[in-house]
This record gives sequence, C-alpha cells and structure tokens, in this order.
Amino acid sequence: MTNPLLVLADHAASWRAREMPADVAHHARRVLVDWFAATLPGCSRPPATLIAAALEDETRGGGGAVCYVTGRRVPLRHAALVNGTASHTVEFDDIYRYAVYHPGCPTIAAALAAAQSRGATMEQLLRAIVAGYEVSCRIGVAVQPSHYDFWHTTGTVGTFGAAAAVAVLLDCDAERTAHAIATAATMASGLQQAFRGEGMSKPLHPGHAAEAGALAAMAAARGMTGALDVLHGPAGFAAATSEDTGKWDKALAGIGKPYAVTDMTVKNHGCCGHIFAALDAVRDLQLEHGFKADDVVSVAVGGYKATKDVCDRPDARTEQECRFSTQFTVATMLLHGGVRLAAFAPERLTDPAIRALMGKVTVALDPECAAAFPSKRSAKVEIRLKDGRVLFRHQHTRKGDPDAPLTDQDLSDKFLELTSDMIGPAQAKALLAQLWEGQALPGVVPLVVNQARAAE
Amino acid sequence: MTNPLLVLADHAASWRAREMPADVAHHARRVLVDWFAATLPGCSRPPATLIAAALEDETRGGGGAVCYVTGRRVPLRHAALVNGTASHTVEFDDIYRYAVYHPGCPTIAAALAAAQSRGATMEQLLRAIVAGYEVSCRIGVAVQPSHYDFWHTTGTVGTFGAAAAVAVLLDCDAERTAHAIATAATMASGLQQAFRGEGMSKPLHPGHAAEAGALAAMAAARGMTGALDVLHGPAGFAAATSEDTGKWDKALAGIGKPYAVTDMTVKNHGCCGHIFAALDAVRDLQLEHGFKADDVVSVAVGGYKATKDVCDRPDARTEQECRFSTQFTVATMLLHGGVRLAAFAPERLTDPAIRALMGKVTVALDPECAAAFPSKRSAKVEIRLKDGRVLFRHQHTRKGDPDAPLTDQDLSDKFLELTSDMIGPAQAKALLAQLWEGQALPGVVPLVVNQARAAE
Repeated sequence: MTNPLLVLADHAASWRAREMPADVAHHARRVLVDWFAATLPGCSRPPATLIAAALEDETRGGGGAVCYVTGRRVPLRHAALVNGTASHTVEFDDIYRYAVYHPGCPTIAAALAAAQSRGATMEQLLRAIVAGYEVSCRIGVAVQPSHYDFWHTTGTVGTFGAAAAVAVLLDCDAERTAHAIATAATMASGLQQAFRGEGMSKPLHPGHAAEAGALAAMAAARGMTGALDVLHGPAGFAAATSEDTGKWDKALAGIGKPYAVTDMTVKNHGCCGHIFAALDAVRDLQLEHGFKADDVVSVAVGGYKATKDVCDRPDARTEQECRFSTQFTVATMLLHGGVRLAAFAPERLTDPAIRALMGKVTVALDPECAAAFPSKRSAKVEIRLKDGRVLFRHQHTRKGDPDAPLTDQDLSDKFLELTSDMIGPAQAKALLAQLWEGQALPGVVPLVVNQARAAE
Repeated sequence: MTNPLLVLADHAASWRAREMPADVAHHARRVLVDWFAATLPGCSRPPATLIAAALEDETRGGGGAVCYVTGRRVPLRHAALVNGTASHTVEFDDIYRYAVYHPGCPTIAAALAAAQSRGATMEQLLRAIVAGYEVSCRIGVAVQPSHYDFWHTTGTVGTFGAAAAVAVLLDCDAERTAHAIATAATMASGLQQAFRGEGMSKPLHPGHAAEAGALAAMAAARGMTGALDVLHGPAGFAAATSEDTGKWDKALAGIGKPYAVTDMTVKNHGCCGHIFAALDAVRDLQLEHGFKADDVVSVAVGGYKATKDVCDRPDARTEQECRFSTQFTVATMLLHGGVRLAAFAPERLTDPAIRALMGKVTVALDPECAAAFPSKRSAKVEIRLKDGRVLFRHQHTRKGDPDAPLTDQDLSDKFLELTSDMIGPAQAKALLAQLWEGQALPGVVPLVVNQARAAE
C-alpha cells in the first residue's frame, strides 16, 4: 500500500500553487463566513474567555494574529488556541458528515492565525483552508465510524487540518508537509467522555488541535521530522484510535473529487447535528399541519446510533446537556419555531413549558436510519396530537447538508443573526462583505458585547 | 467505585500544605537533580533547538520562566514545551517501572516553569513535584500494561503530572485541581508508532504533555471545568487507551505508601533500561577480574523477554538502534567502561573495535530472569576469556532501581558528567549545589556549548 501520509502531504503542498477552480474558492469563502458566524458568539463565553484570561501574561509581546476574544494582536499559536476554542462553543460549526467531524473550527482557527501572522492574502488563506479540509476530512474517513466510540474527531483529526493548512501558509514542500502531518498525529487528542457530561472540554478540543497543528507545521518548517508511518503503522494513529490501521483506500479514493470543502454541511440549528433531521421533520410537520405545542401528546423520534447514544437526554439541565438533548431541542422547536442562540439562554433552560414538553419526547434507534448513516443523517418522527391525528415524516437528510444546502443568502442571514449582537450590525455587515468579496484578510473586530460589559 | 479523579485531586491539593517528610523532600531534590542531568544535554540538540527557533517570534514579550535552550526568560507554557522536549532527548530520565513511565520529563518541566513564573520557593516546587509524580504514576499503573501497546506513557500520562504539579503551584483547591486533571486528560497524547522508527517525535511527547498540562491547570485556576468522570468513564482516558476502564483499585491502593517520588529508578546508563542488568554485570565482572576487552572470547547474556525481544540487535547501526542493542552497549562497556553520552557519538557508531566485539555478544531468554520480571529486572552474564577463564554473574536487579539505588554521590557524578560540557564545570557545580541545598529556585544557566557554536 502507498503510504497515505505521503499522498496527503503531496496533495496539501500542491495547494501552494495549483489552479483553484472558482467554485472551490467560493466554497472556501462559505466555510470562512460560517466559521466567523460560529466563532464570534463564542468569544464572549467560557471557556474561551477563561483561557484568554488565564494566558493574559503569555501574550505581552503582541504578534501578528488576531485573538477575537480580546481583540488584540497576539502570537500565532495563542490565537489558534483561543479562537479555535471560541469557534466550537455555540455549536454552529460546519460538518463533514462522512467523517463525523467539524473541520472549520480547528482548520480555520489555525489557518487564519498563520495567515495574519505572515501577512498573507485572502487567496493564500483560502488555499490553506482547502488543503486543511482535504487532508483532515480524508483522515477522518479512514478512521470512522469506530474512532467516534472513544474519540472526538474535531479534536483528534482537527490537528491534521490545522497542520496541513499552516504548512501551506509557511510554504512547506511536500516533504516538510509530511513531517508536519506526522508530528501533528502524535499530539492529536480529544476524548468522547470529555463532552458526554458536564464541563467545558468540548470547545477546547479544536482549540488544542489548532494550536498543536500549528506547532507541528512551524516546527516542520524548521526541519523537525516525524515518523512517516504514523498514520497507518501497526501502533499508529488509526490503530490506536479505531478498529484497524485505517480504511485508507476508501479515504484517499479520488482526492479532490469533489474537494471536501465543497461537500460540507452547514448547521442550521444551534445544537448537536445528530438531532437536525428530527428538528427539520418537526418544523416541517408543524408548518404543514399548523398545530401548536399544546396540542402534542407525544413525539417519537427514530434515529441512527449517534442520535440515540449521544442525544437521548430526557433530563438535560445544563446548557451543554441541552445542546445534546433531542428532548430539549424538539420541545424548543415546537414552542419557538427554531433552535438558535436564544434557545439556550438561562431562562429557557428552566422554562416549565419546555420541561413539560420534554417529557413527551422519546428517542429510539431506527434500523433504517442506522443503515443509511453516515452518508444520510436521517430521522423518522411520529407526532401524536390531542385530536387523535398521528403525523409522520421520514426526513431523509438535513437542511444544510450538501444535498439540501443553505444558499449564500441563508448563510449570510445566519451570519448576521449570530454576529450582530456580538460586534454590532454595521461591523457585522462590513465583515460579511469582506469575507464574501475581499482580497485582504479580516483583521481585528472589536466585540460590542464585551465593550458593553466593560462599561457596566 | 469512588471516582479516582477526585481521590487524586484531593491528594494533589493536599500538597499545598501537608507535612513534607524530610526523606520525601530529599527524593524530590534527587529527581530534580536527575532532571537537569537529563535535560541540559538535550538543550543543544534537535528537536528542542528546532522548536525554540520555530517559536522565536512567539516569545518576544518575555516572561518569568526559563527556557534552558535559549537561556531566555519566556512565558510559562513555552518553557514547559521546550524544556520538556529537551529533557527526553538523550534518554537519561527517571523511570517509574510499575507504570512504564518517565515522570520527570513532563512533570518537572511544567512545575519548574510554573514555579519560576510565580516566583515560588524551592520548597513549593518540591511539593508540586511530589504531587505531580504521585498523580501521574498512579494513573500510569491504572492503564498499564496494555496502554503501552499503542501509547507512549510519558506523553499521555505525563500530561497529568504536569497538570497536578502546576495546579499545586497555582494554589488550586481540590475542586479546581480535579478540573485541571480532567482538562489535561482530553489533551493527553503520544503514539507508540511515533518513536518506533525514525523522526524526532519521542522527545516532543513530554514537551507537549508539559505544555498541555500547564494549560489545563492555568485554565482550571480561572474556573474552567472539565468532565470529572473522564478517567474511568466508559469513553474516558483509560477506556480509550487501555484494555478496560482502568485498574483503579490497584492504582490508588495506599497513596503515598510509599510516595511514588521515593520509588524511582534513576538511569545509570544512556540506553534502553532492559539492558541495564547485563551492563551492570559486565562492568562488575570486569572491575573484579581486571580483564581487557581484547581478552574476551564471548559474552553470553541471558535476560527476560523484553531484553531478548527489544534489545537483541546484533547489527544495530543508527544511534536509535544502538541505544536498544545489547551487543553495541555491552561492547561499549567492555571497551570504554561506561555507556553514557559519548557512547553514541557518530565515530563510536562505526568504530571497528566495537563492531568486532559486537560479534562476540549473544542474547538469550533466561527462564529464571523472565519469571522474576517485572518486579526484578535481572540478567545472567557469562564471559569467556582467552586464558580459559569463564566468569559468571547473576545480576538480580539494576543499579539505579529502588532496590539498588544510586547514592547521592553517584547522582552528583552523573549530573556533572552529563552537564559539565554543556554549561561548563564551574556552572555545573554551582547548579548542583543549588539543587541539593538551595532554598531559591534555579534560574538561567547559559549553555557554554551554544556560546561556542555561536562564536564559530
């Protein structure tokens, strides 16, 4: 077998100079818009705020990268860590469904910090993003689905996205890129257990991945070598974190056909993606049949394994738990017509109306949905109403998946909804225009919400 | 079962104030002396030199911790990363044999950087070291031996040593220490594959562990929470990296009886520990009987399984291979009377005299030695001489193991031998005195070897 690491490194390094099709560049801008939409709301919330405060002393020397939490110029790795953490906090980040993976958080956090540090152009940033997505998404495919039993892909595989993207920005050739990927492998981490219950670890995972991947690429650019058989070797990344040494033939088949970055799911709800199909079905049934939350007797959700294992949380209490609770989010959709940022405000978490509705929602494993996973993230929803009607919908995919994509306008609307409170409407519109059309990199964007807090 | 993480956190936090027996403090100074002996030679070698150069821009603001590679004051985490990497480069670092683990590299790298950053006293540093050793060594016991199939303990478990030690120095209470340990868990990494072949990843493992553990503690001190069931949960650290959810009863039995830091193996040779007993026997026989290398007809080594499986390398060529070759190291011992730093210099690797002697050395599995493993790391050596004499020694343990410890004088000799070339004899003696007796922390120690190189 060809060493998969060398194939991936060759591909990544080619993005320094290869032709970039217009649609690929456009998709790269879409994920960049979506990254800011997901990141800015995380900038005023823990854990990014706590990490930024804890490391305050470490950034006195300034630097070229922007920390969006503090609005300060800081060293590359610091920005990667803090922004990467902020990007995964409100759970609005993009998904590569074949790898059960959020590539944007770690990859763009590291790529943007490196691009800003090096004074790169927007085009160079987009190239790095495409490379980081391609490398990491394909490694994700090689180790799934068993990887997800114990590991959080966005933490582990995200390290490769960051390493490959930063390597492109540091102009590493294929050999140095290979060593960047190899070194990244042995810093990859992120446990499933860390986000199954309480605590703030989950957003830290892409932050750590972004920082570690950046280190791997920066060291490789200076000549540090790694073990080039570390992905597929008998005690390597795949062997240690999945059921075998990796499904590399499948993972590498037709690199760039299509490019991973063109095949993303964009989140349309602010919670775990394994609940999306059920939420789409609930919303569509409600819009179609015009019932109220009060009319509902029961909601039976049938889903695939992750929906049952991760998102069957009838007694979810904390914000984190509620983001992973089918019961909470279905109840919210029925009562409020959407599951976005406001869904997880403190008063909502304890709202008796939501609590009452949660008791009517059940989650079960549906064999047909399970069989369609991961290429289809489907759900079956059966809603019984007080008037005796039984409504049913088999939702075969999720709005936002590549086969039912958000339009650019949908994405702009999502961006403005999520960021306007954070940075003010005028700044949000200016940043959005910059991300869609600009040739220069985005720079510092002061948080209005933090200014308001500071003035209190 | 009691949550092991909470037990460990309670214990660690108690080191902020509990009585420290004089022998425990002395053992903590011993491992600190040994850490500097192992670290300083790594400061002029890759990968620490490459990482320091790669991150040059990131440290412009200075800081309170000492980077021993550059001799500059830098931020805490930077020093932890670079010094932790340097500490594992020449393979002279201490061993907790029950956990197949080198606790000093990650734990002391992080603890020292935190202590320097906070202006702590030597006593506070020693307390942090004891806590970090106790926490990490016991977690190592819980996941071994199966952990070592895919993971490098010094990278993974080392993260806990760093987190616990830094938490003590940041005065975290038991609850915050628990969150520090929990957050550390989900950044723990280090693959076996990364050091089975070529590349520079192995020393990076404790560097990364030191930096990640420090981050975990710093963030926890600010209020960042982790998942408190992350060690023993069904998808937690032990489950993800060993054959089960952890041997916690065994690992936690009698915490502090004895303290792990008092039960260390100190390396007396600069090679794989599975060769040590044979080397001790060869040296003692030679000292006792006064023969020369030229007088030797054959050396037959009988050892336990790892000695045969890992260290029977009659044709070792590279530095890394030679460190794991019984043939190379026994030949070196016979010719040069020791296996230290100079043993693996380029001219030694190709020395015809060593090559000729290597052909006379054989390795076999000895059932008695195999049965005594792992509590005894023994060997039998039979040397035939040209004058017809047949010398034999059954070496029951290794010099440096807790049951045959190096004396303080031995340790001082090791320190001076390993560091005098690096920092000059006068500075080496002064630092040694400071480490044995000082109440203040060690500070900057400029490398003579780097000054010499800079002047070239």
